Amino acid sequence: MATFSPLIDRLLETLRVLPGVGPRTAQRMAFHLLERDREGGRRLAEVLGEALERVGYCERCRNLTESRLCSICEDARRDDHALCVVESPADLLAIEEAGGFRGRYFVLHGHLSPIDGIGPADLGLDQLEALVHQRQIEELILATNPTVEGEATAHYIAEQLRALGVRCSRLAYGVPMGGELEYVDGGTLSRAFMGRQPFGEQDAN
Amino acid sequence: MATFSPLIDRLLETLRVLPGVGPRTAQRMAFHLLERDREGGRRLAEVLGEALERVGYCERCRNLTESRLCSICEDARRDDHALCVVESPADLLAIEEAGGFRGRYFVLHGHLSPIDGIGPADLGLDQLEALVHQRQIEELILATNPTVEGEATAHYIAEQLRALGVRCSRLAYGVPMGGELEYVDGGTLSRAFMGRQPFGEQDAN
Ligand SMILES: [Zn+2]
Ligand SMILES: [Zn+2]
Repeated sequence: MATFSPLIDRLLETLRVLPGVGPRTAQRMAFHLLERDREGGRRLAEVLGEALERVGYCERCRNLTESRLCSICEDARRDDHALCVVESPADLLAIEEAGGFRGRYFVLHGHLSPIDGIGPADLGLDQLEALVHQRQIEELILATNPTVEGEATAHYIAEQLRALGVRCSRLAYGVPMGGELEYVDGGTLSRAFMGRQPFGEQDAN
Repeated sequence: MATFSPLIDRLLETLRVLPGVGPRTAQRMAFHLLERDREGGRRLAEVLGEALERVGYCERCRNLTESRLCSICEDARRDDHALCVVESPADLLAIEEAGGFRGRYFVLHGHLSPIDGIGPADLGLDQLEALVHQRQIEELILATNPTVEGEATAHYIAEQLRALGVRCSRLAYGVPMGGELEYVDGGTLSRAFMGRQPFGEQDAN
């Protein structure tokens, strides 16, 4: 498909760095911006460039931010005693959107993966330890993913930090709300059985 | 949802200039670029900015290009006698991908729409007339959209250019290939009846 100019072909190809964007969607995006919204496209190029240039990690919790501290660390109304450890900013956002948790976060940006050479230092675990120590965190909620790697990472952190006298917890496993049992996978179902609770007490913790 | 920094919020908002991108997809895109592909994101910002800066219209046919002439106008192997008029570069690309047509194009970038103040000059119709005249076009294929506005535009152009002795044609209406009749809309079906052809001659034109 070399009907267009080299620069447009390059644009079509480059748009595919976006997740979920195939050749057809890239075409639709390129034509939309070139034909109907050049101003919006220019703004996107500019803001994207600026964000990639300036957004780094919060000094305290490693959340994404262009400031020294992220808005959650800056928020004086949050509970300083509970710290929730997540693998990614997307997980943090999902928990924020779910609502309910009012403590602080720590973002690992990944999980332990010896095979990929990702060790404790890459996840900022020394920084996490210092934070727990300095800020007198009482409870550490290990909200890494419910995967083999996420589990292993949670275990490693719990081992490392229990020495500091911090209480470590993990999100409850169980069947997801609102679904139908027949579509829940077997591993989740058996975990939900093992973790079963007396009727009426499910929401008590 | 002000959990993120002003710059990230601005990025999430700006990504939505892309067609089909809602809040959730914008989030996924932003995190992907910030967490996993900063290099790709930088390239996208750069190429997008450059394309919006440099891509304009082909001097001859108004196709999108950053050069004086587009690659189709530059292609010496194309048939100079047939010119296909389309509303948009996306339509041009669809026809190219379908294959079969080896002539040249003219891109209107829209259709006549008095209510929006879009008249013949906005569609480059003087330029089209000069082109037909200068390059001795024999057949003009009016491939505007099969909509009320597309029809009106095709009629207007045919009226204007028939005086130059050029033959004007329109894409055949009919049922789309490969579909099932029961899902074809009534207007299309009755057009297909009116345009019915002796068995064995459907592909003869
Ligand atoms: Zn922070
Ligand atoms: Zn051209």
